[in-house]
Amino acid sequence: MEQDAQRLAEAAAHALLARDHASEALGIKLLEIRPGYARMQMPVRRDMVNIHGTAHGGMLFTLADSAFGYACNTYDKVTVASGCSIDFLRPAHLGDVLTATAVEQTMVGRNGVYDVRIDNDKDELVALFRGKSIQIKGTVTEAESGG
Amino acid sequence: MEQDAQRLAEAAAHALLARDHASEALGIKLLEIRPGYARMQMPVRRDMVNIHGTAHGGMLFTLADSAFGYACNTYDKVTVASGCSIDFLRPAHLGDVLTATAVEQTMVGRNGVYDVRIDNDKDELVALFRGKSIQIKGTVTEAESGG
Amino acid sequence: MEQDAQRLAEAAAHALLARDHASEALGIKLLEIRPGYARMQMPVRRDMVNIHGTAHGGMLFTLADSAFGYACNTYDKVTVASGCSIDFLRPAHLGDVLTATAVEQTMVGRNGVYDVRIDNDKDELVALFRGKSIQIKGTVTEAESGG
Amino acid sequence: MEQDAQRLAEAAAHALLARDHASEALGIKLLEIRPGYARMQMPVRRDMVNIHGTAHGGMLFTLADSAFGYACNTYDKVTVASGCSIDFLRPAHLGDVLTATAVEQTMVGRNGVYDVRIDNDKDELVALFRGKSIQIKGTVTEAESGG
Repeated sequence: MEQDAQRLAEAAAHALLARDHASEALGIKLLEIRPGYARMQMPVRRDMVNIHGTAHGGMLFTLADSAFGYACNTYDKVTVASGCSIDFLRPAHLGDVLTATAVEQTMVGRNGVYDVRIDNDKDELVALFRGKSIQIKGTVTEAESGG
Repeated sequence: MEQDAQRLAEAAAHALLARDHASEALGIKLLEIRPGYARMQMPVRRDMVNIHGTAHGGMLFTLADSAFGYACNTYDKVTVASGCSIDFLRPAHLGDVLTATAVEQTMVGRNGVYDVRIDNDKDELVALFRGKSIQIKGTVTEAESGG
Repeated sequence: MEQDAQRLAEAAAHALLARDHASEALGIKLLEIRPGYARMQMPVRRDMVNIHGTAHGGMLFTLADSAFGYACNTYDKVTVASGCSIDFLRPAHLGDVLTATAVEQTMVGRNGVYDVRIDNDKDELVALFRGKSIQIKGTVTEAESGG
Repeated sequence: MEQDAQRLAEAAAHALLARDHASEALGIKLLEIRPGYARMQMPVRRDMVNIHGTAHGGMLFTLADSAFGYACNTYDKVTVASGCSIDFLRPAHLGDVLTATAVEQTMVGRNGVYDVRIDNDKDELVALFRGKSIQIKGTVTEAESGG
């Protein structure tokens, strides 16, 4: 049964990846997927760095939001964000490789809360993100074959 | 004096625009700038739309975050985000032209709070964003000439 | 029709006040009520002040949360909070009289967003609060007669 | 050294408790204290219950905020909240005994982030709270002797 949940999580992630051109364009890679959990990586490139020499908040948000999106779709039910917050704790610099780890905190009915942390390659915490999710109609894997 | 504040706001925005390749790449345009205020526009393109046929949360965040960034740098003091939150109220669809309006709510010492609303071209509210800002060292316009 | 909406708002507020022992105990008074809007007042008493000589965050939250609760129930549909955030901008001191003003930002289906600002008696902004509301079953005024 | 940190945490908590009439009035008890960590308990009393038969959001906030306050003062440096957010996941009912567990997520310079979860006595998650803290001047234990 646990194995089935893991297979479903992998199938859902596979379906998402096939259509996720935005993450691909940003060099975001999926490192690990489990039910309610995702770990993704993004290198800080020159085009992600702002005038203060540090990664745009929007880029950090997008990385965290991607990990959140993969994690909350691992049950194969189409799930979207209703709201998010992010706190920026340390700047990320050009060349840093960032890792976002999304962990489900709770799921009550169709509503979930996911926490995401972004660490740099020195294992320093760069940002903390919290996302609220809501399941809508449809399955992730069927949407794929239909697309 | 008010005129000076407006000139400074425009000079700062000009300096930011010259270096802002990320916004340019997303088709984000600055419509209006005033001290503590910015209005920006972004069309929802095919590469911004997710598998559910609606704009990525990360794209909405990036638009709001840009308007916030321009608004809070209008005093020509380099200002960065310490944290943000966003609530998604309505989906944005392919072809929508979104407008983000950032308004300063308060500035206490070096700390500011800015509210940003994103509306679609039917004047429907798509998202509400709140950003906390902190002034750091340096001026926006000098950073430009130095760069 | 606008008059009817105002009468409904007043009836709902009246029903809430009759049962609101918590606000009464804190000295919170309702100053103004309109559809989607409430203004409330609270004096900072000795038992609300923390060891740093300033009002407890919890007291400021409770004032803002009350104004939010009255504002979002003005349509006479029982409405509860799904989440809130507050930013503390200036300390409130013993003897200050605080005013919380709650204004509806949007209502999409059963989901609303309300912004509340707390000002002190020098018209300085003390805190900014944002509340998300959701309408559930029942009416506010009928619940009253039933209780 | 670890022992010293634990002693300091206990001394700071002791100093806070001696002055904390607000928590006492609400029946909030400290169950456990460690550096960057606090666990507190509160029974849901009749005067904490709203018209919908469930605990006021303000009461849940106050419990979470207290645990946050004790946890972030365990280094004996006076620390205050700069902002907080809370998501309400399940209602708490009259007679429930709630436990709030506050855990430090990070401390960068004088700025900290703490997560607090509130569980009911069936170990169900009732609310998730996130608090941002900032250290100001003074020590907690000296403030005590001075008071």
